[in-house]
Order: sequence, then structure tokens, then C-alpha cells
Amino acid sequence: MTIRYPNGKRFETSTVKKNQTKKPNQITYSNRGMTLEEDINTTNEWYVEQGLAVIHKKPTPVQIVQVDYPQRSAAVIKEAYFKQASTTDYNGVYKGRYVDFEAKETKNKTSFPLNNFHDHQVKHMKEVLRQDGICFVLLRFTTTDEVYLLDASYLISFYEDMKHSRKSIRKSDVEKYGHLIKIGYQPRIDYLPIVQHAYFSE
Amino acid sequence: MTIRYPNGKRFETSTVKKNQTKKPNQITYSNRGMTLEEDINTTNEWYVEQGLAVIHKKPTPVQIVQVDYPQRSAAVIKEAYFKQASTTDYNGVYKGRYVDFEAKETKNKTSFPLNNFHDHQVKHMKEVLRQDGICFVLLRFTTTDEVYLLDASYLISFYEDMKHSRKSIRKSDVEKYGHLIKIGYQPRIDYLPIVQHAYFSE
Repeated sequence: MTIRYPNGKRFETSTVKKNQTKKPNQITYSNRGMTLEEDINTTNEWYVEQGLAVIHKKPTPVQIVQVDYPQRSAAVIKEAYFKQASTTDYNGVYKGRYVDFEAKETKNKTSFPLNNFHDHQVKHMKEVLRQDGICFVLLRFTTTDEVYLLDASYLISFYEDMKHSRKSIRKSDVEKYGHLIKIGYQPRIDYLPIVQHAYFSE
Repeated sequence: MTIRYPNGKRFETSTVKKNQTKKPNQITYSNRGMTLEEDINTTNEWYVEQGLAVIHKKPTPVQIVQVDYPQRSAAVIKEAYFKQASTTDYNGVYKGRYVDFEAKETKNKTSFPLNNFHDHQVKHMKEVLRQDGICFVLLRFTTTDEVYLLDASYLISFYEDMKHSRKSIRKSDVEKYGHLIKIGYQPRIDYLPIVQHAYFSE
């Protein structure tokens, strides 16, 4: 099920896979077609199973307005609205350190639009960095299936530049300041070795 | 607004305060009557403002089934259900370290019932400890307004004992293994000094 937000973004429920909308005779042998969120969730599940890290996506924030209580069955939420997240989507622990990130994707080939992020998230990233947490964004260029880890300090800096000039990060800057993540089968988006390299190796 | 879960637990939305149900002439000058969740949320907001820690409550997990898209207004969730949380309610960062906890209260005077916790949460606590995260529970005895921080290792141990014997933790054990938190005006439940003492002082 795909939910359109008022801002035109889409909400994907975790129960229904995007590739289930393909014709039945199109059998999929790879994970291609999974959303970035699904790819990261399965990666995180694998990390937990392997005892490598405990990182989860936070639930979608919802403002609940009306709830019904049918007899002998579960409470039903009858009216609720999507709320804008005040933090990033993913957080958890790796080797005792706090890890916090947001993941976004674009179909653009040469730049990453910054309107994917909003003020509250950028404020949260600053607060996390101030507490010495590990904070970054995962940026996927969907046409080439490249995923980069970019430290939040760069994202914040580009975001604040946006007020004056360009509304996106050049891909060449993502390549320069970010780290390309190896895409595989399991885990699909193996970002932990990059976290280890970028934040623990000094 | 109070929502009854099928299991008899109640869901408190953050918009409506419990003490708004008091008679209008009962003016409240203290924070008494706030739920444990509200007390912790205001404490966490204060910590963020003061730059002491970045710890937030995760949104209530909801399974969304049906969404309407009225023209020229926000998407409305028309059918959804409460899901059991697979992790604890609160997490964040303090001095670079990952901090994770669950908060529960009881009206009992001499023991804390363990049916306040469930298997998924206890499993999550084990995983966090394995990753060297700071993990604990905040236990409030409402009749005396005492709040204790108890390290997750003790909670896990008592929880696993539960399968064989008693269904609660004796208050004397909470006092013995836990740390009493100073209750004040701002912050209301000042647990960070205890975290500092218990996890950073060695």
C-alpha cells in the first residue's frame, strides 16, 4: 500500500512489498525493487542477528484523534494523521557508541536535492553531534544504485548553504566528502564497515 | 484522551493531560498528576535544551491499514491498530554513549509486577547490553512517588526468574540493586546524574 502525504511524498507500509505490484510472471530473483527503507531494515535485522549492532527504524509518528473499542476485539484507530518526524529515522548502538542516521534517495544523476531534509532533522543532527554521537545520512542515487554515507557535519553545512545558494548537493561533493557503501546480497547495504572505518579507526 | 488496549493497558496521547480531567476549581500548582511518560518527556526536553543529552521517546507503533486522501487537505488514517513495541520506549545519546530505557509505574507498595514488561523488550535489552550500550529501567512507585533506576541486567535476571517463581520484584530488591532518583521541579525526574554515577564513574 502506498500512502501519499500532502507534500507529495509517499508512505510505504512495511507489510506490502513494492515488487508485489509486478506482473505474476515477472519472477524476481534479486532484491532489486526494494525500497531504500526495506533494504536498510533487512540490513539492520541482519546486524542484530549477527550481534554486530542494534539499530532500528523508529515507528512513523502519528497523531491519534479517535479510537473505537469494539467488544471482544482490539482497539481500532478511526482517525489519525501523519506527523512530521522531529528526529531522524534510524538510531541505535554499535560498540557502545550512539549511532543516528537518516536515509534518502533521489532519481537525479548529478546532484542530491536538499528538500529531502527538513529543519527539525538538521537541528536534531546538530544536537547529536554535540553529544559526540555518530551521525550521518545515507544517500542513494537510484539510477546507479550507489549509496553513500555522508557525515552529518557535511550535510548540515550544505543544508545551511542552501539558504543562500543551491538547493542540492553536487554528486561530486558527495563522492568527495562521503564514503561509497558496498551493495551486496546480505547485508544489502553494508554500512557498518564504513562506520568502523570513519569513526573508530583514528 | 485515554485509550484502553485489549490487554487492559491504557494509551495516553500526549496532547491531553491527565490532570485536565480534574474539576475546574482544583487548580494544580505542582506537576503532581502528570503521567510518568509526561514527566520523562519534559525531563528529556530540558536535557536537550541544556545540551546535556539527546534522548527521546519513540513514537507509538501503529499498523496502518486504510488511508483517505481528501482533496486539498492532509491524508487521514481511517483504520489502524496499536502494535506491541519490539524495543524499549526511550533511547538516545549521552556523552557519546548509547542510552536505552523503559519506564513503568505501579500502585503496589512492596513489589513491582513484572508483567509490565514483555519478551521482546527483554530480548532487546539483552542485545543492547551485548553491544555495550547503557540500558536500564525506570520504576516508579506511584503511592510514594519514588523512582528507581535499575540496570537492565538485574531486570533481565528477575524477568527470567519469573518463569519459575514470583511474578514481581520485591521493593527491597529494587532498593538494593537500583538507584533512587531525585524528584524535583525541573528536571522532574533527574536520572542523568545517576547514569553518570553508575556508568561513567568507574
